[in-house]
Amino acid sequence: MQRYFVPQENWKSEQVFITNDDFHHITRVMRFKEDDSLICNHPDGRAYICEISGIEKNQVVAVIREKLEGSAELPVGVTIAQGLPKGDKMELIIQKGTELGAASFIPFQADRSIVVWNGKKMEKKLERYSKITKEASEQSHRNKIPNIHQTMSLSELLEESAPYDVKIFPYEEEAKGSQRPSFGKVLKDIHPGQHIFACIGPEGGFSPKEAEQLISHGFHPVRLGPRILRTETAALYVLASISYHFEELRCQ
Amino acid sequence: MQRYFVPQENWKSEQVFITNDDFHHITRVMRFKEDDSLICNHPDGRAYICEISGIEKNQVVAVIREKLEGSAELPVGVTIAQGLPKGDKMELIIQKGTELGAASFIPFQADRSIVVWNGKKMEKKLERYSKITKEASEQSHRNKIPNIHQTMSLSELLEESAPYDVKIFPYEEEAKGSQRPSFGKVLKDIHPGQHIFACIGPEGGFSPKEAEQLISHGFHPVRLGPRILRTETAALYVLASISYHFEELRCQ
Repeated sequence: MQRYFVPQENWKSEQVFITNDDFHHITRVMRFKEDDSLICNHPDGRAYICEISGIEKNQVVAVIREKLEGSAELPVGVTIAQGLPKGDKMELIIQKGTELGAASFIPFQADRSIVVWNGKKMEKKLERYSKITKEASEQSHRNKIPNIHQTMSLSELLEESAPYDVKIFPYEEEAKGSQRPSFGKVLKDIHPGQHIFACIGPEGGFSPKEAEQLISHGFHPVRLGPRILRTETAALYVLASISYHFEELRCQ
Repeated sequence: MQRYFVPQENWKSEQVFITNDDFHHITRVMRFKEDDSLICNHPDGRAYICEISGIEKNQVVAVIREKLEGSAELPVGVTIAQGLPKGDKMELIIQKGTELGAASFIPFQADRSIVVWNGKKMEKKLERYSKITKEASEQSHRNKIPNIHQTMSLSELLEESAPYDVKIFPYEEEAKGSQRPSFGKVLKDIHPGQHIFACIGPEGGFSPKEAEQLISHGFHPVRLGPRILRTETAALYVLASISYHFEELRCQ
């Protein structure tokens, strides 16, 4: 069933008012009529089967029929901090990362990031990304839309990461042949309900200085298999492994 | 160190002859000179550190100096059969799938594939894909370049899959709430050295008829987390989970 995330102010007692792009999608793309059913998601994660009771000039009115139980959210919260990559790779990371269950994304200006985002450029990008997360959340049947933060510097990011339960960063150099715990061991020590902060380097990886700072702030360097992954593949590996570990390996 | 896959006929006793695109890459892009070192991969998986002994008009001659031990190949062989997707998604699957360790790719014409590949179109696509696998193998430091098969029908694919040790297909409908083993349970029963055949549906998934045929040929339906993944994300989830399971969860 088609799913729409509806902003909090559009929920009024037993009715949901659907406007803007979703109004267009319902009336023009899906060509829904009165009495057709759809799923409306509240920003707090609840989801309801609703029935269209009226199509007005600028809004669709739907009546709540049934609460949907169950959740498609990862049992652990995962924040992906991504060193600014080149081109449109961030869009791929955000779209696929949303499908794979990320709770939030933080773009950050890494030493080896070639691009710089500022002012208007950043604003425009964040607007585009918020559209991508909404669409990918609807498509993948998530209960919540991931947050996208403003771009941070490494020091802002280290401060942001402080309250997290577990912090990791894929780092080929450090992880190679070291005595540090493997990615599997790190995940084995995490419990459902905890929060993971994963920091991914841009093309060219982290500078030695960045790696030092991460380690001194409690980040574990991890290996994602013995192959060298492109930056956009690393985030997807981290999320797919966390889903596999907590959702498919344990639930037997 | 820069890595090049060199065809078998270009290995002669202690010398390797590098031609065509790689010749161009070495002389124009990397601007290597005599005595510079690079890694040459033999199609059988062996890799050597070599030293450039001469740059001629159409070829670079390199002398073998040292065999590289160790392998970046997955301990299980994974074949990805991918229902033909729209647009250039197959390129993404092949590039990322190579980084993540796939042994081979089989494009197949699924019931719900919207595109049809034939004759010249297929030939051109396969040529492009073989370039992508070579570049992604070099970039990710693999020992072998994955194979790309000609497009198959489902019945050809079922025949091809017969000798494999374990066969899976992500199938939301079948896996939901069923008593079948989870993806984690399936992987736990696989031993290093065995071969996995993973069959991924196109946009819109498998038709019920295709799912029936797969099941009757010994394929296990599996779930890849509770979210609905786009077709191109499914292959990457399968490969990342297999890498995590065999390379990062076990090696503690």
